[in-house]
Amino acid sequence: MNQVLRQIRNRKSVRVFENREIPTQVKEEIINAAFEAPTAGAMQLYSILDITDENLKKQLSITCDNQPFIAKAPLVLVFLADYQRWYDSYTYFDCNPRKPGEGDILLACADAIIAAQNTVIAAESLGVGSCYIGDILENCETVRELLDLPDYVLPIAMVVYGYPVESQKNRKKPMRFEKEYIVFENKYYRLTKEEHEKMHSIRNRKEGLSNTDIMEYIKKRCDFKYMSDFALEMNRSAKEYLDKFRS
Amino acid sequence: MNQVLRQIRNRKSVRVFENREIPTQVKEEIINAAFEAPTAGAMQLYSILDITDENLKKQLSITCDNQPFIAKAPLVLVFLADYQRWYDSYTYFDCNPRKPGEGDILLACADAIIAAQNTVIAAESLGVGSCYIGDILENCETVRELLDLPDYVLPIAMVVYGYPVESQKNRKKPMRFEKEYIVFENKYYRLTKEEHEKMHSIRNRKEGLSNTDIMEYIKKRCDFKYMSDFALEMNRSAKEYLDKFRS
Repeated sequence: MNQVLRQIRNRKSVRVFENREIPTQVKEEIINAAFEAPTAGAMQLYSILDITDENLKKQLSITCDNQPFIAKAPLVLVFLADYQRWYDSYTYFDCNPRKPGEGDILLACADAIIAAQNTVIAAESLGVGSCYIGDILENCETVRELLDLPDYVLPIAMVVYGYPVESQKNRKKPMRFEKEYIVFENKYYRLTKEEHEKMHSIRNRKEGLSNTDIMEYIKKRCDFKYMSDFALEMNRSAKEYLDKFRS
Repeated sequence: MNQVLRQIRNRKSVRVFENREIPTQVKEEIINAAFEAPTAGAMQLYSILDITDENLKKQLSITCDNQPFIAKAPLVLVFLADYQRWYDSYTYFDCNPRKPGEGDILLACADAIIAAQNTVIAAESLGVGSCYIGDILENCETVRELLDLPDYVLPIAMVVYGYPVESQKNRKKPMRFEKEYIVFENKYYRLTKEEHEKMHSIRNRKEGLSNTDIMEYIKKRCDFKYMSDFALEMNRSAKEYLDKFRS
């Protein structure tokens, strides 16, 4: 196993940071990695907002489901899926473009996340931990206003970075499902109820939750992750963003 | 600059592969890297299809805007944004779940691409080149049938992998825009016409296209990348996928 693979294996999200700035050069290296990422048609269908204003960080930590650790991160980047830039180029240079549609914005989301993950890997190689904040998709109206977002831009992820405190370095990485439930050959395979039960049981056992009642476990997950206020808000808000991209 | 950063900088997409299999262990390492990626709420909102059937590869090379090199790749993975798995778990265990919505599928798309980019980086570290195929978003009806996709699954990217031929190793990486046009501090900045012109001019000059008329250049890009049949088809098809995720 080479250094890159080892780093990928050992990497886990960090939510408590040392009270220590990220030096300018390190920050540059992290952002540069975004630029080196593959991008559809070399179009760079993303923009990156570098959130340096402490008050803005605080406001985003509130719009993102009230997670105060966000405001304490020394580096906060918002990755925007951006079709505004190319649409504006086409408009300025008299191409009479159509409005961006669903395919355009999904391609831009992919572009933005590919770039984001490159920064996460680059950061890790420099001893800087990170955490994705999907909640940046919530509260469309407030976030649009805070970040001056035009119509053809969608904040697909926020990533916060910083030096991990010791306890974060030592914490266990959450277990994954067994590969047979995630990777299929040639065609999608829809798991049976028994396979669902086994999939969750195996993972829970690996997590040390061996006596968990699966139905109770799934119901709790559903309440907390799927029927909860933040999940409903994310759907409402994401719909607002996507409504601009109707072909 | 450490090895990881150097690798990220040197990586470019590969579209011509040596006629050489990827050994099983190398393939395992590539797929394992997907599992090690950060994932929202440890939910793994993705599935991976390992396309081993040569005929299926050929069919996908056609549905993906007729790109024959796809069929020649020794490893082809389709990354599915997958809310079907958790929705089925919730259903089987009597949670009476709502239907997945726009926020759910965008979160799943991010999850799937984060995993995909980990495989791309892992592959590179093992000498295996790769190329994203966004065109997997096209031809929804055909692709759904070919891959047996249920409603709450969306193919956000395909990645093809293989050992690069010498000419691919030596080709120039496409130039990126200057950072000032992509990275903004705190708020989104919408570029003026003059800034658009400058942004494209600088990049074209770096590409060695110094005498390019910018209006002509942008019009060609618009015709080829935005008003073209494949772009219109991608929008039509992506809308079909997203129509299942309306909250």
